[in-house]
Amino acid sequence: MKTESTVVRNAQFIVIEGLEGAGKSSAIALVRDFIEKHTGQAPVCTREPGGTPLAEKMRDLVKIADETDPLCDEAECLIFYAARAQLIANVIKPALAEGQWVLGDRHNLSSLAYQGGGRGLMPLVSAISDATLKGFKPDLTLYLDIDPKLGLARAASRGELDRIEVQEIAFFNRARETFLSYADNDDSIMIIDASQSLAEVHKDIIAVLQNQAW
Amino acid sequence: MKTESTVVRNAQFIVIEGLEGAGKSSAIALVRDFIEKHTGQAPVCTREPGGTPLAEKMRDLVKIADETDPLCDEAECLIFYAARAQLIANVIKPALAEGQWVLGDRHNLSSLAYQGGGRGLMPLVSAISDATLKGFKPDLTLYLDIDPKLGLARAASRGELDRIEVQEIAFFNRARETFLSYADNDDSIMIIDASQSLAEVHKDIIAVLQNQAW
Ligand SMILES: Nc1ncnc2c1ncn2[C@@H]1O[C@H](COP(=O)(O)OP(=O)(O)OP(=O)(O)O)[C@@H](O)[C@H]1O
Ligand SMILES: Nc1ncnc2c1ncn2[C@@H]1O[C@H](COP(=O)(O)OP(=O)(O)OP(=O)(O)O)[C@@H](O)[C@H]1O
Ligand SMILES: [Mg+2]
Ligand SMILES: [Mg+2]
Repeated sequence: MKTESTVVRNAQFIVIEGLEGAGKSSAIALVRDFIEKHTGQAPVCTREPGGTPLAEKMRDLVKIADETDPLCDEAECLIFYAARAQLIANVIKPALAEGQWVLGDRHNLSSLAYQGGGRGLMPLVSAISDATLKGFKPDLTLYLDIDPKLGLARAASRGELDRIEVQEIAFFNRARETFLSYADNDDSIMIIDASQSLAEVHKDIIAVLQNQAW
Repeated sequence: MKTESTVVRNAQFIVIEGLEGAGKSSAIALVRDFIEKHTGQAPVCTREPGGTPLAEKMRDLVKIADETDPLCDEAECLIFYAARAQLIANVIKPALAEGQWVLGDRHNLSSLAYQGGGRGLMPLVSAISDATLKGFKPDLTLYLDIDPKLGLARAASRGELDRIEVQEIAFFNRARETFLSYADNDDSIMIIDASQSLAEVHKDIIAVLQNQAW
């Protein structure tokens, strides 16, 4: 029989999602600290695409713009899932199995929103998503919702935009609609209003975390 | 009304498949010459994975063996399809649309055989294959059938083996079974006995090509 003190809290996989400039990076820092206080241990932090040596090489492939050999939408989608499969197999699942919490900067919802909604490839994306992930998903996703115009303005103030950040605004509007419709249909996805001040955003995030039945 | 001389023969996509050392490279040279004589124009030759600048980078990813970050089977499969989607979009379809014949050193059947049969990932592979290719397939595939022991011995005589060539023999036996079962069920796949002498193999290939109703 286990006594109270030997009950190990199940490690959780928490993901921060949102358009560019939504404020994911600063939310990560906040949630990281919360998890460390809550569990006594810092979570394993990941970013997607990337997070393993090979997955970072795959990230490079989707970030570069080659005018003579433009990356086709299907290849882009497949590379994102290759990087994700690699990260899940070699980082996320091993960490969770060891009882370490995992905190992700983006995960599958970004592919559904960008490649599925943004690029209009939902049948391909959802077939690949189902076949690759086989039901594996975050325990909790915090979706930082923002108008793309505001988010891109924030992101632009940081410097050069990459191949995806220079898409037309309609692309990001479609991605946002997709984020919101998944959030509406999945209790594990919480919407945070990211157009607020940083202090208000962080207050909302802490409230969501404190409300969880860990 | 088109006169006889203005009727353009439809460009074909022909693929050579087979295990390592089956003799694909020398078959390619033979078929290339046949197509050039037959159509008056050399075909566009492709190899998979690879064949575009970005797809060649994807090829590098599946060829290297990183012990600290071993490529997981799902990622391997997704990378092969990303490279294939890129090649189809930027090389194969544009060439066929311009009336150029295309001659491929490997194509989708290799993924079905190696990742589906060899790795035992057929549900994932066929889901991704269907979702990515949406029915696009070669007009004719020449499958060079060989016992893996013989093929690998031929390939080994060429030099260093890569990450896939060092798989156990059972892996290649499963791949061979898969090649054969697809060939049995698809009239566009012709089996060539590649255990014969080079002269006999080439005689059989020419016979198949001459029998086609181009
Ligand atoms: N709520 C906010 N109010 C005002 N500025 C903010 C807010 N949140 C983030 N920012 C600022 O906007 C910029 C982009 O934020 P951040 O890098 O956290 O976004 P991100 O979602 O991580 O973007 P990316 O997708 O590009 O990684 C930063 O300069 C950040 O300080
Ligand atoms: N029928 C044959 N009899 C004897 N040797 C052969 C025959 N066909 C090919 N070879 C030799 O076997 C070696 C491998 O052949 P080849 O490179 O054409 O195979 P491949 O199918 O292209 O292999 P890979 O998959 O590694 O590209 C070469 O040295 C080639 O000359
Ligand atoms: Mg960020
Ligand atoms: Mg060869």
